[in-house]
This record gives sequence, structure tokens and C-alpha cells, in this order.
Amino acid sequence: MAAPVQLREVARVRVIYGDTDQMGTVYYGNYLRYFEIARVEYLRQAGVPYRDLEESLGLRLPVVEAGVRYRRPARYDDELSLRAALPQIGGASVRFVYEIRRLADGELLVEGHTVLACVDAAGKVSRLPNGVRAALNAKA
Amino acid sequence: MAAPVQLREVARVRVIYGDTDQMGTVYYGNYLRYFEIARVEYLRQAGVPYRDLEESLGLRLPVVEAGVRYRRPARYDDELSLRAALPQIGGASVRFVYEIRRLADGELLVEGHTVLACVDAAGKVSRLPNGVRAALNAKA
Amino acid sequence: MAAPVQLREVARVRVIYGDTDQMGTVYYGNYLRYFEIARVEYLRQAGVPYRDLEESLGLRLPVVEAGVRYRRPARYDDELSLRAALPQIGGASVRFVYEIRRLADGELLVEGHTVLACVDAAGKVSRLPNGVRAALNAKA
Amino acid sequence: MAAPVQLREVARVRVIYGDTDQMGTVYYGNYLRYFEIARVEYLRQAGVPYRDLEESLGLRLPVVEAGVRYRRPARYDDELSLRAALPQIGGASVRFVYEIRRLADGELLVEGHTVLACVDAAGKVSRLPNGVRAALNAKA
Repeated sequence: MAAPVQLREVARVRVIYGDTDQMGTVYYGNYLRYFEIARVEYLRQAGVPYRDLEESLGLRLPVVEAGVRYRRPARYDDELSLRAALPQIGGASVRFVYEIRRLADGELLVEGHTVLACVDAAGKVSRLPNGVRAALNAKA
Repeated sequence: MAAPVQLREVARVRVIYGDTDQMGTVYYGNYLRYFEIARVEYLRQAGVPYRDLEESLGLRLPVVEAGVRYRRPARYDDELSLRAALPQIGGASVRFVYEIRRLADGELLVEGHTVLACVDAAGKVSRLPNGVRAALNAKA
Repeated sequence: MAAPVQLREVARVRVIYGDTDQMGTVYYGNYLRYFEIARVEYLRQAGVPYRDLEESLGLRLPVVEAGVRYRRPARYDDELSLRAALPQIGGASVRFVYEIRRLADGELLVEGHTVLACVDAAGKVSRLPNGVRAALNAKA
Repeated sequence: MAAPVQLREVARVRVIYGDTDQMGTVYYGNYLRYFEIARVEYLRQAGVPYRDLEESLGLRLPVVEAGVRYRRPARYDDELSLRAALPQIGGASVRFVYEIRRLADGELLVEGHTVLACVDAAGKVSRLPNGVRAALNAKA
């Protein structure tokens, strides 16, 4: 039986006007920005800064799939806790899961996941280097 | 056996710099903007302008779920064909499906779906008015 | 005495939820997206598609200065008329001016300008090619 | 002779993919998001949280003018220092000035200003309450 996935806080953000829409809550597409912040900080904390993947290893991790469940809205000026985990590290792809919680009371606002492929500079699917996999597995 | 869902083109957009990111392709969260354009135009063409839902009927349709599959990237200056269908019209929710195709050659770039709940001005789940359901069913 | 600048409509857009903020009007930074749409269509109509500048000539036109005056707000679902002119075509820079009007009644909502430098692939300031200047002057 | 304006750091942000465009640098309109973050944190540090202005006093501060000078580009993953000052506090408007500097070396990337009007819930120009003016003057 698989252990349940443990998400941990990797960043905090505060909702600005530019994130909201006229419902007075965060625009549904902008949560994907928060997911990006979460996974980039997750990778940094795992010792695998995304910028280095690109610049040193010539790799990129485009998102090939995303899913979001909007439970409750995040509102203007809310501080949000961005939480992430990396439950699957495949040969040439990784799957992140996310939770966005209101910092004040821990309320779960949004959940989601993304699948990222590993591609080389030419856009061809490429194996994750062993060092990267080891670092991610150590952190997961 | 259910008939296959027929999507139809409801709008066209051209990719601008502001939609792209440094991979040179559309930022993954910005496709949700295109989905919004698609469903708003779908509703308008069905005789149910979203603005009227809000202003005349006091209803809103927040997105409660979204999913996206990124098959191929849309690039700067590409003209995109936004296609949508409404395969499910529930009592208090609707499900849209979307395709984004490159206009030049019809290539499928992105697919996705959203589920929208119907809520009243106070945010309480509310039945879709019969007139709205009838208009949507006639178009679907 | 200089002739007054004649702006002409180069594109139309409809305001989506993703453009608005919780004031119920377009977020102040998003008008710069509309300015981009306007100048790209202006260039296309002048026979100088921006994509070709980049891909064929290896040039880019980064914005070095922008100014905006917000007269009246654009609202959700408004159709906007994007108007532009090119009053200055310098050796290595151009200055665009913009107006955003509500299509329904022609009301002026936002005015602005941008100055764009011409740089080569290495980011070095570069003269606008004579053919480009001629095309822009013919149109202006 | 007026004393020179002293800007101070009010927030830090890190550039994400969602902020960049295909030039590999921050999209020109997105710096206005950074300006918003800067002025909101400036107001919070002055004891005048913007959310309270809206919710307790029924006031809003729409931007009526903005100007930006793009000196050098901010790049993906750069940490930015957002700096602001409030050189003018009028009867019914305020003028903010901003600097965005690269945190690593202090390099000035972008400068700008915004003028904000004070309006009531109905959108009518309204005097800044004395308490707010006093707090802002104490901080400026």
C-alpha cells in the first residue's frame, strides 16, 4: 500500500489586484502561476534549481498535463501557503501535486497536479540525469 | 451509446508576446484565458451572454474544476482556432470541453475541460434557470 | 507646424474576466497587452510583420519607455477599439501612440505611448533597415 | 529646494516563467504588477493597508497615470528588489515612484511612477481622510 503523499510548504505569496478578477477572487488561470512558484521552489530546495537544469544541462521541463480543483476562492490580500510534493519521478517525466491553503486558518482552497516532461534543447524527450533523479528522490 | 462530442470553432485569437514565456511558446496558465474566451463566445452564440447571466439574473458560473493536456506548443503570432462544446448540462453545473488548434494547418495543440458551478450573488449553489438550460440544450 | 497625429483603428478586442480585477474593470497593467496587440497589427498592416523582423532580420524591438493615461475604465465584456499611430521613426527607435476607445460609443478610455528600440540578436542597438523605414514611413 | 526622493525597499520578488516572454525577459506590462506589489507593501508599512481603505473606509485608489522606463531587462529567476517612495500626497491623489533593482548586484533595471486618485464607492473623487494623510506623511 502506497504511503500517502506528504505535501510541504515551499513558498508563500500574497494575492494582488493583478491576480484577481471581477468576482473579487483569484482568476482561475492564475493559480497555475502559484503552482509554478511552488514547483520551482520545491526544486530549489531539493538542490535542483530549474535555472541550472536549463543553463547547465540544456534541459527543460514543459508541462504536458495540468489539473485543478477549485474548492474555495482566494481573495485579494490573502496570504497563501503554497504546498507541493513530487509523488512520481519517471524516466523522462515527473508529477507534482499541489495544495494552496489560506495561511490565516489553513483552509484548503485549491488542489492540483502537473505532469512535466523532460526534453532537451531540441525539444526531444530526454531521460532525467541520474544526479537529478537522485536529488529528487532524496527529497521526495 | 453516447454520440461523440462535436466541438465547433467559436473564436480565433492570435498569440501575443504577453501570452508567451521564455520557452518561446504560450505560458501553460494562459491557455485557460483562451478557454475562457471560448466558453464566453460559446454562450453568446447560444443566446446566453454571460454578462446577462450576471447582470440580469444575478448568477455567476465560477470554475470548480479544470484540466488541460498540452500536446504541442502554440507559438508567438500563431493564429489559433478555439473550439468548444458543452457535453453536460446539469442542474446546477455545466461541463465544457475545449480544443485549441493551429489555424494554419488544423494541428491539435491543447485539449481541456472545465466544470462550472451555478451560484447566486451570495455564492450559494443555484439551479440553472429553465430558459438558460433550454437555450444551451438547443445549441449543444 | 507639425500635422496632428492621426490614429487609426488597427484591432478590436473584447474584455475577458482574465483582464479584469476586483474593481470590475481592466487591470491597469493589462492595457499594455492591448497596446502590444495594437502595435503588432499596425506593423502587420504596414507590411512589416514583427515576427519577420525577428526571424528574417534577426532584429527585436524591446520597449524602452511606456506611458499610460487612464481616463475611464474598460469593463468586462466591453468591445474595445484599439487605435495606433507611429509619429516618430528614428534611426534606431520608433515611438507609437495609442488610444483605446469603447466601441459602442467611441468614448476614449485610455491613451498612451511606447518607445521601442531596435536591437540585434546580441541586444546591441541597431539601425532600422531602410526597407523597414520606408514601409513605416509610407504607412505613417 | 526639494530634498531628493528617498526610495526604500518594500518587497522582494523572484521572476517566474509566467512573468517572462519569448525574449527571455520580463514582459513589459508585468512590471506594473511589481509596481502594485511595491505600493501595497509601502502602504502596509505606513500603517494604511489598502484592503482596509477599501473595506473600512469604502475608498479605492485607481491608477490614473503610469510611466515606466525600461533600463535593463529582468531575467527568469532573478530576485528583484522593489523600491518605492511617495513624493506627493495631494488632497485626492497620491504619486508613487518606483525602482526595480536586481538584488544580486543592485543594478537599476526599471524606474516608474503612478498617480492614484482617491474615489469613493460610487467612483466619485474623494478627499483622502486626514488620518490616512497623516500616516502617509509620517512615513514619506
